[in-house]
Amino acid sequence: VLPAVKAPLCVSTDAVVEGVHFLRQTPRFDVGYKALAVNLSDLAAMGARPRWFVCALAAPSLTKQQVSALGRGMAALARRFRIALVGGNVTRARQLSLTLTVLGTAVGKGPLLRSTAQVGDSLYVSGTLGAARLGLTSVGRRYPAAVRRQRRPEPRVALGLLAASYASAAIDVSDGFVNDVGRMLSASGVGAAVQTARLPIDSDVRAAFARPSAALRMALIGGEDYELVLAVPRRRRRAFERACARARQPVTEVGRLISAPGLRLVDGSGRALALPKPGYQHF
Amino acid sequence: VLPAVKAPLCVSTDAVVEGVHFLRQTPRFDVGYKALAVNLSDLAAMGARPRWFVCALAAPSLTKQQVSALGRGMAALARRFRIALVGGNVTRARQLSLTLTVLGTAVGKGPLLRSTAQVGDSLYVSGTLGAARLGLTSVGRRYPAAVRRQRRPEPRVALGLLAASYASAAIDVSDGFVNDVGRMLSASGVGAAVQTARLPIDSDVRAAFARPSAALRMALIGGEDYELVLAVPRRRRRAFERACARARQPVTEVGRLISAPGLRLVDGSGRALALPKPGYQHF
Repeated sequence: VLPAVKAPLCVSTDAVVEGVHFLRQTPRFDVGYKALAVNLSDLAAMGARPRWFVCALAAPSLTKQQVSALGRGMAALARRFRIALVGGNVTRARQLSLTLTVLGTAVGKGPLLRSTAQVGDSLYVSGTLGAARLGLTSVGRRYPAAVRRQRRPEPRVALGLLAASYASAAIDVSDGFVNDVGRMLSASGVGAAVQTARLPIDSDVRAAFARPSAALRMALIGGEDYELVLAVPRRRRRAFERACARARQPVTEVGRLISAPGLRLVDGSGRALALPKPGYQHF
Repeated sequence: VLPAVKAPLCVSTDAVVEGVHFLRQTPRFDVGYKALAVNLSDLAAMGARPRWFVCALAAPSLTKQQVSALGRGMAALARRFRIALVGGNVTRARQLSLTLTVLGTAVGKGPLLRSTAQVGDSLYVSGTLGAARLGLTSVGRRYPAAVRRQRRPEPRVALGLLAASYASAAIDVSDGFVNDVGRMLSASGVGAAVQTARLPIDSDVRAAFARPSAALRMALIGGEDYELVLAVPRRRRRAFERACARARQPVTEVGRLISAPGLRLVDGSGRALALPKPGYQHF
């Protein structure tokens, strides 16, 4: 039972499943951590303040150690982001999975949507792209920061709360930059021109590949970055950048929204690039 | 995004998993129906008005027909109980499952809890017991009403809303009367004496078994009845029964709460009966 709330409520649900979102050998602490992190990322993309969550656990068998480790992983993030567990459910299943539902409250002018981006807006992306996918590869094992990004993604909650005062639309990068930007563009009925030379490709990803095109590809379709993509009206661009700098939230302007539908990639010399095949598809 | 709410929020999450809560051959409409019904039953036990829900679907593969049937099953109940779907997620998994989270608003003096039953309260149970379990057996196939109870349980939402003004505590019967009453008693730090002769054993369950003790056993531990068990203070008992009669909500007084912890079963001649082994255990 939760108190009455004065602000609009934001709600989102997301699952992590063994063999899909994590491996059998992934430490259970990290599984719990990631389950809450990906849900907090959804709230971040709405510019919402995290408040409460419920957790449905499905598992083939349960040991105290396993439950404790899953719980500690969730609790670590829950404390940091001040979100309280208010309900749960446990059921038997052939595969381990955690399905969380998070509740948040909108701040400022209300929640950010993915469907309200406008032609002319600048397109920003937070942090860096590609490292989470790198952390999943055999090469990636040599890059501890990338493995950490894969196992313990950092939800951009503070940036989302800040962006609620500036951005016209937002989405988080879970299935890859190309996929998720595409969703925002479709939902908003606009297109985008993105300059690939401006993309904040993670430094480990650049280091791991001899060919720059391979690094670019991983940044574009790798997935699980849990960075925010933000559409910001041109007139608010400077104020937004100053606010991000003050709050130490790294963001990079990577392109602009245009009326022609779809995502266009443009290289450093102004040439159009083919879109790489989409990233992870659930079906 | 949901509007701000003035009443305390109630939230609950529950999953249905293939091979655990339904069979491979169960019609997908019924799977969707049951997934929402069991969650609405949780809100009913809180005396809460259903408002919103989110649905996380996990499946090995997805066909349009399957998604449509699951959706139609949920929509049928959602319309009746005026609960709106406000978010969802789809992921790949080896087993079909639906994990729903429901949000409701408390009415009257706020939500009913399972932990606030008092010594001296009368113990009531709604409807009838045992039919849902009967509907799962080979014998049960001869009883269409029992099969329907198993596949399309009826959440006691109206009774829960009514009971919010009378009861001191409530729980819904998902894992069997003995299991769930036991949970209420433990949470409240009380015991109960229940007269088995008063238990509203479903008429199909009585008909299906030659031995009355077998019918009693199914009613006690069968599970998935999704009836409400309500603790009602003695002084409100008559008013509660009148209100139930006016609202055509069948309830039966089956016993009384006592200070000695645990559930005691007493037969028609006042003899103590051994508790049957507990019903379905998830682990």
